[in-house]
Amino acid sequence: MKDLAFPIADAVLKGDTADIYFLRACEVLEREGVNPRATMEVFPSRDGILCGMREALALLRRVLPPDAEVWALEEGQPFNRKEVVLRITAPYLSYGIYETALLGFLSHESGWATAARQCVEAAGDIPVVGFAARHVHPAVAPYMDYAAIVGGCASASTPEGARLAGVVPSGTMPHAMIICFGDTVRAAIAFDRHMPPEVPRMVLVDTFRDEPQESVAVAQALRERLNGVRLDTPGERGGVTSDLVKEVRAHLDLAGFPWVRIFVSGGVTPDRIREIREAGAPVDGFGVGSYITSARPIDFTADLHEIEGKPIAKRGRIPGITPSPRLVRVL
Amino acid sequence: MKDLAFPIADAVLKGDTADIYFLRACEVLEREGVNPRATMEVFPSRDGILCGMREALALLRRVLPPDAEVWALEEGQPFNRKEVVLRITAPYLSYGIYETALLGFLSHESGWATAARQCVEAAGDIPVVGFAARHVHPAVAPYMDYAAIVGGCASASTPEGARLAGVVPSGTMPHAMIICFGDTVRAAIAFDRHMPPEVPRMVLVDTFRDEPQESVAVAQALRERLNGVRLDTPGERGGVTSDLVKEVRAHLDLAGFPWVRIFVSGGVTPDRIREIREAGAPVDGFGVGSYITSARPIDFTADLHEIEGKPIAKRGRIPGITPSPRLVRVL
Amino acid sequence: MKDLAFPIADAVLKGDTADIYFLRACEVLEREGVNPRATMEVFPSRDGILCGMREALALLRRVLPPDAEVWALEEGQPFNRKEVVLRITAPYLSYGIYETALLGFLSHESGWATAARQCVEAAGDIPVVGFAARHVHPAVAPYMDYAAIVGGCASASTPEGARLAGVVPSGTMPHAMIICFGDTVRAAIAFDRHMPPEVPRMVLVDTFRDEPQESVAVAQALRERLNGVRLDTPGERGGVTSDLVKEVRAHLDLAGFPWVRIFVSGGVTPDRIREIREAGAPVDGFGVGSYITSARPIDFTADLHEIEGKPIAKRGRIPGITPSPRLVRVL
Amino acid sequence: MKDLAFPIADAVLKGDTADIYFLRACEVLEREGVNPRATMEVFPSRDGILCGMREALALLRRVLPPDAEVWALEEGQPFNRKEVVLRITAPYLSYGIYETALLGFLSHESGWATAARQCVEAAGDIPVVGFAARHVHPAVAPYMDYAAIVGGCASASTPEGARLAGVVPSGTMPHAMIICFGDTVRAAIAFDRHMPPEVPRMVLVDTFRDEPQESVAVAQALRERLNGVRLDTPGERGGVTSDLVKEVRAHLDLAGFPWVRIFVSGGVTPDRIREIREAGAPVDGFGVGSYITSARPIDFTADLHEIEGKPIAKRGRIPGITPSPRLVRVL
Amino acid sequence: MKDLAFPIADAVLKGDTADIYFLRACEVLEREGVNPRATMEVFPSRDGILCGMREALALLRRVLPPDAEVWALEEGQPFNRKEVVLRITAPYLSYGIYETALLGFLSHESGWATAARQCVEAAGDIPVVGFAARHVHPAVAPYMDYAAIVGGCASASTPEGARLAGVVPSGTMPHAMIICFGDTVRAAIAFDRHMPPEVPRMVLVDTFRDEPQESVAVAQALRERLNGVRLDTPGERGGVTSDLVKEVRAHLDLAGFPWVRIFVSGGVTPDRIREIREAGAPVDGFGVGSYITSARPIDFTADLHEIEGKPIAKRGRIPGITPSPRLVRVL
Amino acid sequence: MKDLAFPIADAVLKGDTADIYFLRACEVLEREGVNPRATMEVFPSRDGILCGMREALALLRRVLPPDAEVWALEEGQPFNRKEVVLRITAPYLSYGIYETALLGFLSHESGWATAARQCVEAAGDIPVVGFAARHVHPAVAPYMDYAAIVGGCASASTPEGARLAGVVPSGTMPHAMIICFGDTVRAAIAFDRHMPPEVPRMVLVDTFRDEPQESVAVAQALRERLNGVRLDTPGERGGVTSDLVKEVRAHLDLAGFPWVRIFVSGGVTPDRIREIREAGAPVDGFGVGSYITSARPIDFTADLHEIEGKPIAKRGRIPGITPSPRLVRVL
Repeated sequence: MKDLAFPIADAVLKGDTADIYFLRACEVLEREGVNPRATMEVFPSRDGILCGMREALALLRRVLPPDAEVWALEEGQPFNRKEVVLRITAPYLSYGIYETALLGFLSHESGWATAARQCVEAAGDIPVVGFAARHVHPAVAPYMDYAAIVGGCASASTPEGARLAGVVPSGTMPHAMIICFGDTVRAAIAFDRHMPPEVPRMVLVDTFRDEPQESVAVAQALRERLNGVRLDTPGERGGVTSDLVKEVRAHLDLAGFPWVRIFVSGGVTPDRIREIREAGAPVDGFGVGSYITSARPIDFTADLHEIEGKPIAKRGRIPGITPSPRLVRVL
Repeated sequence: MKDLAFPIADAVLKGDTADIYFLRACEVLEREGVNPRATMEVFPSRDGILCGMREALALLRRVLPPDAEVWALEEGQPFNRKEVVLRITAPYLSYGIYETALLGFLSHESGWATAARQCVEAAGDIPVVGFAARHVHPAVAPYMDYAAIVGGCASASTPEGARLAGVVPSGTMPHAMIICFGDTVRAAIAFDRHMPPEVPRMVLVDTFRDEPQESVAVAQALRERLNGVRLDTPGERGGVTSDLVKEVRAHLDLAGFPWVRIFVSGGVTPDRIREIREAGAPVDGFGVGSYITSARPIDFTADLHEIEGKPIAKRGRIPGITPSPRLVRVL
Repeated sequence: MKDLAFPIADAVLKGDTADIYFLRACEVLEREGVNPRATMEVFPSRDGILCGMREALALLRRVLPPDAEVWALEEGQPFNRKEVVLRITAPYLSYGIYETALLGFLSHESGWATAARQCVEAAGDIPVVGFAARHVHPAVAPYMDYAAIVGGCASASTPEGARLAGVVPSGTMPHAMIICFGDTVRAAIAFDRHMPPEVPRMVLVDTFRDEPQESVAVAQALRERLNGVRLDTPGERGGVTSDLVKEVRAHLDLAGFPWVRIFVSGGVTPDRIREIREAGAPVDGFGVGSYITSARPIDFTADLHEIEGKPIAKRGRIPGITPSPRLVRVL
Repeated sequence: MKDLAFPIADAVLKGDTADIYFLRACEVLEREGVNPRATMEVFPSRDGILCGMREALALLRRVLPPDAEVWALEEGQPFNRKEVVLRITAPYLSYGIYETALLGFLSHESGWATAARQCVEAAGDIPVVGFAARHVHPAVAPYMDYAAIVGGCASASTPEGARLAGVVPSGTMPHAMIICFGDTVRAAIAFDRHMPPEVPRMVLVDTFRDEPQESVAVAQALRERLNGVRLDTPGERGGVTSDLVKEVRAHLDLAGFPWVRIFVSGGVTPDRIREIREAGAPVDGFGVGSYITSARPIDFTADLHEIEGKPIAKRGRIPGITPSPRLVRVL
Repeated sequence: MKDLAFPIADAVLKGDTADIYFLRACEVLEREGVNPRATMEVFPSRDGILCGMREALALLRRVLPPDAEVWALEEGQPFNRKEVVLRITAPYLSYGIYETALLGFLSHESGWATAARQCVEAAGDIPVVGFAARHVHPAVAPYMDYAAIVGGCASASTPEGARLAGVVPSGTMPHAMIICFGDTVRAAIAFDRHMPPEVPRMVLVDTFRDEPQESVAVAQALRERLNGVRLDTPGERGGVTSDLVKEVRAHLDLAGFPWVRIFVSGGVTPDRIREIREAGAPVDGFGVGSYITSARPIDFTADLHEIEGKPIAKRGRIPGITPSPRLVRVL
Repeated sequence: MKDLAFPIADAVLKGDTADIYFLRACEVLEREGVNPRATMEVFPSRDGILCGMREALALLRRVLPPDAEVWALEEGQPFNRKEVVLRITAPYLSYGIYETALLGFLSHESGWATAARQCVEAAGDIPVVGFAARHVHPAVAPYMDYAAIVGGCASASTPEGARLAGVVPSGTMPHAMIICFGDTVRAAIAFDRHMPPEVPRMVLVDTFRDEPQESVAVAQALRERLNGVRLDTPGERGGVTSDLVKEVRAHLDLAGFPWVRIFVSGGVTPDRIREIREAGAPVDGFGVGSYITSARPIDFTADLHEIEGKPIAKRGRIPGITPSPRLVRVL
């Protein structure tokens, strides 16, 4: 992930996505000739996993003058409520209008990464894949997938998100394809025929028939080429229970397919993951969707703490630099 | 709002933000020569306010063939859990890879619009403005602001979001500007000197001194040109209480400034709005931020219900067209 | 039901099932020559539906002398906490040892009847059948089934219980039979071949295949002779959901079997019945088991209130006859 | 207890207490000539103490052919939710109609034994006696008393129940006897005069006068022949409190009767027992009634897991024999 | 009550019971020659019944100069949270040191009166008597009794409290007296022999024997001279239950003493009163103790709102006179 | 504290504050010539800190004859529910009418001392001062302050209360004084000018301006003579938060006044103290008011346990002396 460049959109650079009052404030300051060297500190409203810093720094590198000083916490690190994660010292007008964007990167991406981390920690050794793109606007789906991977997911479902994170995208097959074929086994055979060998044969088995029955039928059709089956049983049918996973495993084993893996998706949350694991259900992978996208952004706040080297602050905040030994100078 | 065009990004059109399994599914179907005329229905997981449909239809107009049929519910309408809001009948391959994007538009924007509507309903006659851009990635901040306005907000803070919704952006002044000036009154006078007359003089009064004291000082400086004051007292100082609003009002009135309006921001939620109104605090406007961005997306699901005119469905769903009298044919 | 005779077991008549202290008390009183004409009143510890009175009166008719006086509330009537349901005036030694049995009839049977009534009220027009025998000792299974029918059930599953209540027993087919045949359709055909025409063809459809698929297959085999299907999906598979019922209905209707009824069993309680009905699921009958047998007995208490016509009572009770206008003289 | 024979009633052997669908299923199978060697496993729905197995095995010994194989857990053992407690391998028709009775023995008796065990564990060294017959139908009162003793009770109140368990029945004297005599002391003297010496003189002291006063009066009348007093104060008078026990003890000791034991009944539950013991009240015995009879039966389920040696199961269960190392071969 | 004079203690007049900072503040102001005509307003922290105003005005009449102006709400009136109940306009030094005492009168007495009112409202037509003196310091016991009567109690137990309120004190007899006599009937006869005829013969009947038994014995001794019995059964014996009251009533009526009233004390609260009344227990009077003395004082606050006729206030309060139409000018 | 004499008021000695039934009981006993040597024991209804014993013993010393025997627990000691804290053996008529007063001293003062102790324990090393006089009637304010100090407070606000406890009273300055001066700094300078040097300069800083601003201004005026500032921010302004304390500390330190202490009052409770300390706010002292006065009295009960050396008790209590090894003979 280290070398990726996050390109900054023109609309961001021009301030079209900024709160308008920053544009107005900078215009007023400029006309008054007020442009002090100001130190801004950024801190979160609750604990979490840092994400969005790489993009924030990409923006700052574009706009700050050479004498600016920037200290930051590293992408992917845990942080505590009210801990400073970013400190900028530079002429205020060089970065004033970007406060909205900087906070936005950190708030939105850290929210997703933190939720992903919770799932990953619940899952222990079992890999978790991000399947969340369908719940967010496509303009941020790649950043969300990137954040999920920063949070610990093994992969995610969009090509662009996987590219940002430097991994291969992951997916099985949609119900729609099986319905177009009218039969799961027929769909599985066609998928196997046309997909390149590096794409795992992971067949969705809850579309038409009972899951254990369909799993065995698909295994009998693809045999050693079948990597796994995916259970995505809808809530109308009780969702995927621990007992269903055990039953599918038993039927696959009885029928002679012990290598076929079982992948679970649909309503997966850290609590569900823990329940399923505690019940001893033999799951080989989890797909997480709305738990990540339902996560609230972790709101970050930016405050000026020094003007021309003198401590100052708005009411409610402590004037002067906040001691923050974990920060590293990055600019 | 009627005539706005939502441009569709290239990454969306190419499928870079799609779940990769749709790309694979369509490749398999194409190679097998399977491309049935299929009817897909889209429904939400809970009640809400519809938003994102305008953008969804913009995408469908770009990609569907002339013989396609599309029925939809109108932007801004309330919908119920499991109610169909969109039905597409067309060759499956013409729209299959866009399922992720279509659901993403609707899920994310409806989530925001619904939260905004809750604030607007709580506020009754008092205008509500969206101040939420700082909590989301700048790539979606304009769509979020657009959704807030669809949900009933009078305006929002980003130029691009306001443009999408066809309104004038709204904002007052940031704490940072006042700190750069080192004094609220000085900042207010500079703002008044340089801003065009159509920008309301709305001064933030909690930065350095007690709010009633600062409010009167600012009013004495700008007099009849002062439109209002904004209270954004931080949580460290107890936030904005109903009593504080009353006290500021009393001091402004006693000092002879009855026309100066009071605008409240910071931690505003429907519950807080109701509490403040029930306490009789004379608020003239609310700024809402994280309540909107903390709203979970309203997950939408897409299902195929007919293939070549024949009812079909995956397990858990009812085969055939779902009776949906509120839908209007839009294509 | 009116004319049924409840035979009283010898063990009861001899006192082998009585609390031993009654046997001892009567021996002491007899040896002392103390045998006053005593009035005993019986009342319940909470509200409910009266059951067991028929059996209680059958016992009293066997043992009381001609000059005894008995007043009682009628079988199947609702009663309130602490309301007198039975009053006996007779020489104490003629009925003293039967206190345990009389209270036992009323407590156990009223508990069952009350639970059955709750299900029946929740179900409205939809018939409820008692399927509870497997949760109680076979020595009382018939009395439990009788009580369920007194509580409002349309029928129950044991021949002896149905006989006591004067109805025809009810049942479909067990999973074990289908497993012995190895196939639901084969089992259904065999059942249809050998059962007399008055036995409804009600086939259990959750044993091997997905319920909608199995329902349609069974309907195609038995066609107009099929009365209904029973859904008994186990908890490991999410139980019977409202949506599953709707889905089975849709598939049966689409396949041309609108007359086939849907019967639901497994974990049925008044709350579940109400949920299913409120969700609009088209259920045609409910089978209730452990809700009835899990009902606590409604404890009844017996107190002496007069001795030789003089008011008396133990501490905590009011001396003298309790005014009880609903009682009817039965002996 | 080891050698007791539980006689099986004719109604059970004939199937009159079976769910009718088993009778029908067996008729169908027989006419079709289908009678596979089938393995049935029985497991409980929650944790508890096993009771009813002795009666279940008595039935199986009556009906199974010589080549049948039966494995079981022992009467009185604790079991866990879903643990197999009984496994039968035999031609299905030899035991099919007894599923209802077998489950009924185990469900009802294990429910009672488990509740009794909870009381006994709460009571530690203090003996607990079953006084519950009045809350159940006399047809099962002996089985309930037997189960209470399997659960750990020192004795129980019905002669037949005590006989099944091989102990001497236990009881004191009823309020009715005291009311017939009109005076507790007079009743106590009469009881003492006529009862054989092996019956303990245990006098009920809450009928007419304050308990400490009555206790001392009774002790003064029977002196060294008095074994104990029973407190059964009704709820209308606040029930038996810890402080009342201490007060009776203090008055008995002050009056010179330290050997007179105090026995407590009425509303006794494990929680009440623990409260009373923690409060240091000097109780010498507890009588438990409705806590045992209010216990829900512990529902047991029977499933076929092999047919002619081949693994099979209904949906939701795992095909094949469940590993169960605690089972012992009993047939 | 109208004409009573509340004498003001010297310690209060000298400031020995004032917060010392008022003494210091007045000394500083005096030495600086600062003594503005100041308007002080007093308001409560929650809803309640006003008490202590009569004493507050007695103090103000002693200390204020002739040109002072005082407006007040009347003793015994209900008030709302934050409603002004007292407004003083006078030279500050004439009343500054009495702020502590004025708030203390109102806070403590209104707390008691409010609790008493809750009991009285719960009791409806049944008289309530204050029996609370034993829970408070004797220096305030009379004021507490006075407040209970302002709150609606028919009487109270201390001579001095009753005198303040202009009523006759009320009481029955203590357990200690009965224990000194060693017998309740003997104590009752002695009481009857020596007390003047206007003192009601109200005998405490729970000391030695069961309450119904003792009630009848006392009634047989005093016959038509017995006014009532008091039930004060301790918690160790389950307290006074509704059923006990009914039972005592039944025994008194059966024995021919229908005129003997039943008075209940011990743990009486509004909830207990309501429960007892809803249960239909025939209580003729309640004695309330710790419910009144456990009531928290209703904290009152005093604020200066005008100095020399000009609006002013500390932060958090609104400058200027608070419109208060319910106030009446009293000085 | 050891040598203080608590004078006993005449009204107490005459019985004007006694429950009238004690006066009547003693009159009856006297006329009957019944005056046994009786032992009374006093115990509390819940755990707490003993206070009021010094005053109780002062009363007993006044009234008991020389042959009386009194055992007591010491002032300030913790006690448990139902533990005997006082035992009197003397002719009953010598102390009978004082039961009300004795219980009142103990109940009221122990309630206050216990609440104070909770605050003191929560505060650890930080001193706590009682500021509660304004919530109680001035007749008991000194006893309440005394009890707060017995509970562990460093001082209290009334001169008379401090005198009873042998300490110097404590206080800062009231809002009213600052409002009379119209300016906090002017008030502080005047206070400093006129107060003797031993009175700490502790200035209230929330009256007119923002607390940090006012704190620095006051410090700049009084410099090294300023001992501390008091924060008493009202609830209308969010109260005193941990963050406010930190902010005031930071501003004082930045301005060069590290020795100025911060004292917090207003809504202080043990929970608030713990929260503030856990948040790391640098508080130097707490002022506690309504938490102490809102404490319920700890009801004490008095029972006779021996008459002329013979064990006796009312129902619900144990006859005879209660073993109480912690008691010390004081008379």
